[in-house]
Order: sequence, then C-alpha cells, then structure tokens
Amino acid sequence: MPTIALRNDSLLRALRREPVDRTPIWLMRQAGRYLPEYRATRARAGSFLAMAKTPELACEATLQPLARFDLDAAILFSDILTVPDAMGLGLYFVEGEGPKFKYPIRSAADVDKLAVPDMGRELRYVMDAVALIRRELDGRVPLIGFSGSPWTLACYMIEGGGSDNFSIIKSMMLNEPALLHRLLAVVTDAVIAYLSAQRDAGAQLLQVFDTWGGVLAPHHYREFSLPYLARIARGLRGSELGTRDSESAAGDHFAISGDGPSSIPLILFGKGNAPYLEELAATGADAIGVDWLVSLEEARRRTDGKVALQGNLDPAVLYGSPAAITREVQRTLASYANGGDGTRTGLIFNLGHGLSPDMDPEHVRALVDAVHATAST
Amino acid sequence: MPTIALRNDSLLRALRREPVDRTPIWLMRQAGRYLPEYRATRARAGSFLAMAKTPELACEATLQPLARFDLDAAILFSDILTVPDAMGLGLYFVEGEGPKFKYPIRSAADVDKLAVPDMGRELRYVMDAVALIRRELDGRVPLIGFSGSPWTLACYMIEGGGSDNFSIIKSMMLNEPALLHRLLAVVTDAVIAYLSAQRDAGAQLLQVFDTWGGVLAPHHYREFSLPYLARIARGLRGSELGTRDSESAAGDHFAISGDGPSSIPLILFGKGNAPYLEELAATGADAIGVDWLVSLEEARRRTDGKVALQGNLDPAVLYGSPAAITREVQRTLASYANGGDGTRTGLIFNLGHGLSPDMDPEHVRALVDAVHATAST
Repeated sequence: MPTIALRNDSLLRALRREPVDRTPIWLMRQAGRYLPEYRATRARAGSFLAMAKTPELACEATLQPLARFDLDAAILFSDILTVPDAMGLGLYFVEGEGPKFKYPIRSAADVDKLAVPDMGRELRYVMDAVALIRRELDGRVPLIGFSGSPWTLACYMIEGGGSDNFSIIKSMMLNEPALLHRLLAVVTDAVIAYLSAQRDAGAQLLQVFDTWGGVLAPHHYREFSLPYLARIARGLRGSELGTRDSESAAGDHFAISGDGPSSIPLILFGKGNAPYLEELAATGADAIGVDWLVSLEEARRRTDGKVALQGNLDPAVLYGSPAAITREVQRTLASYANGGDGTRTGLIFNLGHGLSPDMDPEHVRALVDAVHATAST
Repeated sequence: MPTIALRNDSLLRALRREPVDRTPIWLMRQAGRYLPEYRATRARAGSFLAMAKTPELACEATLQPLARFDLDAAILFSDILTVPDAMGLGLYFVEGEGPKFKYPIRSAADVDKLAVPDMGRELRYVMDAVALIRRELDGRVPLIGFSGSPWTLACYMIEGGGSDNFSIIKSMMLNEPALLHRLLAVVTDAVIAYLSAQRDAGAQLLQVFDTWGGVLAPHHYREFSLPYLARIARGLRGSELGTRDSESAAGDHFAISGDGPSSIPLILFGKGNAPYLEELAATGADAIGVDWLVSLEEARRRTDGKVALQGNLDPAVLYGSPAAITREVQRTLASYANGGDGTRTGLIFNLGHGLSPDMDPEHVRALVDAVHATAST
C-alpha cells in the first residue's frame, strides 16, 4: 500500500470528531450520469457493467468529479450488487429498469448454495480498481470503499431486482424467518470480507449503504437489518488483514478482538434510519449517514457526540437555484451546529441520498462551494 | 339526510376514544383491484375514471368489500385527484403509469386561474355517489368521505402525475415559495369545501390522505404540508352547512368558530408522518393515521390520549401466510395497548398504506378476522 501522506485529511478528521478548517463534503453518486464526461466514458465502455468491471474505466469515472469540484473524498465507482453477482446470481441491467438478477434466491436450496466469494478472484476487478484509484489519487483526498448492507443486498437477491413493495422478501421474512437469517448471515460474512479486501487494497474509509432498511416496520428493522449492520462494524474491527477466506468466513462466527491495527473508519448510511439513530450510534461505527427526513439538530442531539454524522441535504435542493442551494446549505450547517456545542465538529456534509442524472453540474458546484465558503465554527 | 340509526358504530366510538366491544377495522383501498368483482365492475365501466364518475358504479365498488369481509366502515370509492380535475387540469390515466394531468400548473398565470370548483356542479357526481352509498348502506356501518391533502394534490398538479423525486414542485418550493403557498391556499379552500360537501351529502367521517408529505425535510413539511392540514381541521369545524361557495372560499380566510353542529370526525393520514405526531395531534383532528414505520406503542405514547390512532400494519404482511398475518395483527394490537393503559381504546385498525392488486382476498379475510377475534381489552 502506498505511504504517500494525505494532503486533505478533513474527512478523516471529521470522522474522529476533531476540528477542521472547513467542513468536508462528498456526494453520494458524485461519479455519475449528471456529468457529460461520465456519459462519454460509459459510451466508450459500452455498458455500465463493463465500466464497473474495467479498473481503468472505474478509476476514470471515480476521478471525474474531483477534476471539476472541490470535493474532500473520492468514492470507488462501482455497483452495490457486485457481491451477489460474484455469488453467481448473474447481475444484468435493463435500460430504464435498473439492476436485475438472472438467478434470484427463492428457496432453501438456493440459500444453501451461497458462499462468500473469493475476493482475489471473483472480485479481483474491484480490488484492482481500488488500488489503481488510490495510486492515481496520489494523496489528494481519501478514497472511500463501500458495500450494500446485508438487508439491502438481500432485497435485490430475493426480489431479483428493484421492487415497489418488497413482497417476495417480506413474504420470506414472515413465513421463513430462519431461512432469511441464514441468507443474511452469509451475505454479512461476504460484506465483511469485501470491505476488508477493499481496505487491504487501499480504501481509507468505508461506507455501508442500507438503502432499503427504511421499508421495514421497527420490529422487523431491529431483527433483519440492524443486527447485521452491527456485525459488520464489529467484524471489521475484529478481522485481521488477509486472514479471511471463503472457507472461514462462510460460518456465522466473528472473531471480535477490539480495534485491530488495520481498522479504518466506517460510515453506516441508511435511508429512513432516523428512528434508529441511538442504536446505530451504539454499533461501533464511526459515523452515521442520514437522509433529509430528520434535522441534523435532532440527529446530533440524539447521538450525543458518540459518532460523527454525515448528511443530509435533500438531493432535490439541487433543482433549486444556486441562491436557494446556498440558503439550504447554510440552514443545514446551522442545524448541525444547533444540535451540539455550536461548532460543526464531527460533520461530513453530503446529500441525504444520491445525485440524479438530470441534475445540473453547475448546481453541484454551487453546493460544494457553499459548504466550503461557510465558516466552520 | 337519512336518519337511520347506525347499527355498527364501533369506528365512531373509537374516534371519540370510548370503549368498544371489538376494535374497528377498515382498510385503505379496500375497494380495489385485488377483488375479482371489482375488476368485473371496472371492465363493465370501461375505465377507472368512468367508474369513479358514475355514482351507481362507485356505489357498487364501495359496497363490494363489505359483502365479503366483516369491515367496520365503508369508504367512498373515488380518486384523490377529483378536485384538481374539477379545477380544469384534465385528469387522465395511462395503463400502468398512474394518473396524469393534461394541464399541469407551472407558472404564476396557471396558479391565478385556479378557483374552488362548484361542488354542486363539477363535483356533483361525487356527492351523488356519497348520497347513494349512504342510502344503500342503510345504517350498516359508517361511510368515510375523503380528500387528498393540499401538499399531495399540489404534487400531482405541478408534476403533472406521479414522480420519483418531486423535482418540479420542490424547485417551485425553493425558488418561488410564495407562489406555491398561493396554490396551496386555494387547494386548501377547495379541499375544505369538498369535504364539507361530502359531509352534507351523507359522509359520517372524513379522512385526508397526505400521501407525499413524507418526502419533505422537516422544515419544509412544517411550512408546506402541516399548516394546510391544520387549516383543514379548523376549517371543517368552523364552516357552516352549505354557506361556502366558490366565491367566498377562494380567499385565504377561515371563519373559525369552534365545533359547529355539523362537525364530523376527521382523520389525518400521512405516509412518513411519524416525526410530526405531536404536532398533528394538536391540529384539532380526531385521529391520526400512521404508516408502519413507527410502532403504535410509540405513536400512542407521543400523542398521549389527545387523539385516536389509526393503523398501522405493513401492507406487505398480507403477502405472508394467514398464520403470519394473525401473529403480526396480535403484535400490532399489543403494541398499541403497551403505549397506554393496556386497553385498545382509541384504536382504529388499518394498514399503514393501501391494499395492492396482487393481494389475496383470503388473506384480507384472515386479517379482518384476526383483528376481531382478539379480545379488545
């Protein structure tokens, strides 16, 4: 791993809740279709999946937003469904319909066949991309690695794609809860192995996206999403560099031994996670990423300095004018400050969800600049 | 208005937080495509809109679920977009795409043209349906009238149909908030006139559906949705029978004079309204309808006996087996009891959102029967 000093460490400092000169900002889906240069790379690649699976192209896409905007982190360009794809489910994309799996998981026999993929083989392309991006970044800003959460991956794996009502996974949850737990356990092992491998390849912090935890009733969230997020937080702290292989990781066992030397910060982002902030802050994660349906003032008060917070501008604010964007940014920053000691220590600015293809890059610039222009104390 | 005595008043008693023999239940979208007899009526009508606009067919659809299940209320079969349609926006449906408007509202000139429709003319078909259904019900169970909330209607009016990200209305909200408030004010007047007319035609309680309030950040919800819900609650109490016409209702003035003799109970339902339960309970509404993302225990504790509560089973529970449905019903009932004095006084059982076309009517029966079979104290 390169030992080049990080020239902009504001994100890592915010994660440790240390004072920063300016509030760090990165944006979910900052590498994406709203950028013409991204669309050009994708056209050259032929498809989204070819782009994600070719380290040089993934690196190119990752770096594009950094060339345009004064962002404080890069995030690996990839898809949240690489892990189930590597488990043999056959990921493909239908234009305008989102991701699909050729072989969705529907039965006990399907679940029994699942195993943690070999990170050096089936997911080698991701690790190669991480290593290449880290090299190309050359210490400019930190690199974020990521994964989908176990519940969110299970949604796609069982539904076979996106869903409006999650009828298939919820039916399994109600009728065969033990089977769903078995699936979630192996997916959790795979996520831990995947994030550990990204860290080993050069990622400097990690984010888990629990995109669909918010569709669950509280008692179901606490049974089928939250415990697996907590396992990831513990598993990443406990795991040793390179000791995990598909054999040992397939079981439901975690060697938890406190902060290992290889531990890097973990952000747990979840749409609709506002009701669970106290519980998420107790998982051992370093930061909680929240959507825009809760004020940062409330989120900070409820997490009480135990974690850093990431968020949480409504992405639709980018459809407003630059003046409106600046106003909403200032309001968001003030909200965070009001929830604590009046400073912005421990805040990572982000949207409450990802950027959309129809957003104007100049509005993204207005957003980034507004965050940096506002004095941080 | 007929003066036939109501033979099943458990819903009205629950709304007054009086003891009941058994917990009342009705289901959002209980008249709908999951019923083969509904599909037959619709086929006969030719289209959804023809069905909604023909009082005899609307009456037929309204009564169908009551013939099958032991439900404690009927709800007018209609669409939430009848009011903007009557305002001249040209409602139409595209198969598989949901409702659309031919003339969406995009400019100040568009907003200026809006006026409260004449309930006896443009919305006569709704009032005729209400009167007919009330007659046909013959006192069996109470009849619920309803409307979309101002914010929810504005979403459709401005977006021109459904939306994933509400980019057009949110852009107006950010760039021209005063214009959006003008639109919301006239829509609120129309909703009050519409609900008052339904009451005058025979509806025995009213529900407002704030389907999309939950897409707003808290400060935007409190500015663009909540105050208009509160105006409706006050407006319905203050308004006199038949005194409202399109002229006097078009302004932003409310004659608030406490409970009028014509006041009937009002339920404010909102997807994603959990963060605002205390504020909703203070609007003067009789009950708050909640989705499944908050436990009834918490909702009851937070509203502290000020209102009745309606909800809140995850509709997807109907994809589970009858045994799982029964288990989740019992858990929901226990949750409500735990949030207060251990009884179920003040609870109206419902789903947290509507029934879907692919649900099994036999599972709906299992749900209704499970609610009634569980002792209410």
